[in-house]
Amino acid sequence: MVDFTNKSIDFQVLRQRAFNLRWAEVPEGVIPLTAADSDFHPAPEIAEAMIQYIQGGYFSYTPKRGFPEFKEAIAKALWERKQEKVDPELILPIDSAARGMDAIAKAVLEPGDEAIVFDPVDFLFKTSMEAAGAKIVLFPMKLREDGTIDFSDLEQYITPKTKMLGLCNPHNPLGKVYPLADLDHILALSEKHGFYIMNDEIWSDIVYPDAKFNSILNLGNDRNRRTLSVFGFSKSFGIAGLRAGCVYAQDRELFEKVVEASQVESTIGGISALSQVAGQACVGKCYYWVDQFVDHITGNRDYALERLGAMPGVSCYKPQATFVLFPDISGVGMEAEELVGYLLREHKLSIVPGGAKFFGPGSAGHVRICLATSRELLAQGLDRMEAGIRAIKK
Amino acid sequence: MVDFTNKSIDFQVLRQRAFNLRWAEVPEGVIPLTAADSDFHPAPEIAEAMIQYIQGGYFSYTPKRGFPEFKEAIAKALWERKQEKVDPELILPIDSAARGMDAIAKAVLEPGDEAIVFDPVDFLFKTSMEAAGAKIVLFPMKLREDGTIDFSDLEQYITPKTKMLGLCNPHNPLGKVYPLADLDHILALSEKHGFYIMNDEIWSDIVYPDAKFNSILNLGNDRNRRTLSVFGFSKSFGIAGLRAGCVYAQDRELFEKVVEASQVESTIGGISALSQVAGQACVGKCYYWVDQFVDHITGNRDYALERLGAMPGVSCYKPQATFVLFPDISGVGMEAEELVGYLLREHKLSIVPGGAKFFGPGSAGHVRICLATSRELLAQGLDRMEAGIRAIKK
Repeated sequence: MVDFTNKSIDFQVLRQRAFNLRWAEVPEGVIPLTAADSDFHPAPEIAEAMIQYIQGGYFSYTPKRGFPEFKEAIAKALWERKQEKVDPELILPIDSAARGMDAIAKAVLEPGDEAIVFDPVDFLFKTSMEAAGAKIVLFPMKLREDGTIDFSDLEQYITPKTKMLGLCNPHNPLGKVYPLADLDHILALSEKHGFYIMNDEIWSDIVYPDAKFNSILNLGNDRNRRTLSVFGFSKSFGIAGLRAGCVYAQDRELFEKVVEASQVESTIGGISALSQVAGQACVGKCYYWVDQFVDHITGNRDYALERLGAMPGVSCYKPQATFVLFPDISGVGMEAEELVGYLLREHKLSIVPGGAKFFGPGSAGHVRICLATSRELLAQGLDRMEAGIRAIKK
Repeated sequence: MVDFTNKSIDFQVLRQRAFNLRWAEVPEGVIPLTAADSDFHPAPEIAEAMIQYIQGGYFSYTPKRGFPEFKEAIAKALWERKQEKVDPELILPIDSAARGMDAIAKAVLEPGDEAIVFDPVDFLFKTSMEAAGAKIVLFPMKLREDGTIDFSDLEQYITPKTKMLGLCNPHNPLGKVYPLADLDHILALSEKHGFYIMNDEIWSDIVYPDAKFNSILNLGNDRNRRTLSVFGFSKSFGIAGLRAGCVYAQDRELFEKVVEASQVESTIGGISALSQVAGQACVGKCYYWVDQFVDHITGNRDYALERLGAMPGVSCYKPQATFVLFPDISGVGMEAEELVGYLLREHKLSIVPGGAKFFGPGSAGHVRICLATSRELLAQGLDRMEAGIRAIKK
């Protein structure tokens, strides 16, 4: 059994290495439940594989489209974990899921095109599509009574200029999986109107046992000829700093456009040999670790929901996926940015505010809390949040 | 002393790992003297540093602008090796020199701008500047009687639309260093006409003992406010597969434009933590290795020049830098592409043809030979070349 308690966390190393709003960037004594990055050591097989490669010597130029054995390992995992049937030749290893999104956007978008981005959602949809020159059309997400996302008026956001739709599946920061019927509805619109789908499945391994992940690719490769998918190794396996991800496609011609946009053929683009070795170890050997990690996170989710439910002015739905919670704090009486600043200053807790910067305007009145830590730390963090909110409400 | 003989080369690993026209991509029995990549194990300190980092566990998100200690190590090396005074805060670690060139081009070029590219020169100048939308204006290189490049008519290629000039220093594939007076002339034109200089110094460590490297930055930081420099770790240290390089600037405002173009702030761009650890070991600990490597290459150069001089229809000037030779084969009676195909097919030697694809139209009638191997292999390769050429001339 993998140990996910405080004992297994090396805080000294995290203070040196965990950037992006985490341990290395917060003042001493502050608990960061910020960036979606884990406090746990990655599975040891990843380090072992890299050390073995390093001991062979040589870090020569790699194949421009990635190591064939890495692509085969990805294809195998996609099939076994998600029943996605992907040709290894239509998988492009790349240096992060974020870069993959950028390459996908540049492959098909041109200035003047419109791209539909859910609101809220991770900022990288907007960032990558805007970088390709597209005009962003926000689709404000409403929830049905059963908690699923209401797509009934999605078609109203589609115009003749709509060239792409961004699908974050599972959804960050809402932690939603999608019923197959909703994915079918989105895919039917893509078929009817001819737009491409940027299908981000970076969170697809982090699904709670009470939910079921469906991929839009499960609707058949034929129907997904305009779908470009992206996966990364940072969420499942905790190797964000190694910058490893991949893009995959169902259609060879479209795949070639992504390859061209990625600039790997000129060596401007690419992914480090060692990051590929690490990624191959991840998908080939480390899903036992992911499964135990998800078990641990499930306990953290349930614990945190109970705690948040007891805080005045705070409410939180139960996410089905991702290791982030996105509670509504609009009843506390402070804007999200202000609350986050206050908690950091007065209660030594760092979390991420909702709002336009990270997740879109529809995320106002919310904060995001990362669960990828020990129960002890999560409890301390929530103690601080509760103390701060109770002080405000007094 | 580092061993640069055949004994130190692990051919079995090279056959698995050396791509980009090298061992892993040529048929059994063929000697590749192709891509500018080394047949030798990199200095052991690089592997040791990476293994130590890996053993610390954790591959969390890194600082978006790179590890501060890596940037300080680069600044120190730039000063000690080349007397370039660079503020560590104006150094951006990035995933290859090629990517650095791309970011530099995107930072300042817009569609409609003109960019001056020497002919011949490495294809990445053209590729990166064209990707940014610029129109390439080729500057055909002529040599003065003393072998230096004749820049007397360079100003004729400058128009009001000229926004950038690409300077490959030392020059690949000609192996030239530049007298300070020529750099002063180029810099004066930049000051007069206001264009930026893309200053590629990836080869600046590989300078033969009978030559002296001058950097355009030696003319003073004040005069170089429009200069954007790029360095990579693949040529000096043999770690192309780790994808490590950096961009540096003299002007903060211009540097910020490169940072923006590099997309590191959004995490779309970036460089692996381990590649930074490797790069830091390179510049901090491995110049002893580079110096011995250059000694070895100097012997290879002199040997190869003697051998090429004895081949009918072949002539070659003596390069001052880089570990490539660029002999004129126009007297052999075959186009470069044809000769290269023939040598591969009939004599099991793989080399790179001159011509538009890799180096520009001005490189026709030449081939490029990589010297970064053992004397034994180089001798065998040249035996094959000579046998092939003698067979043609018969």
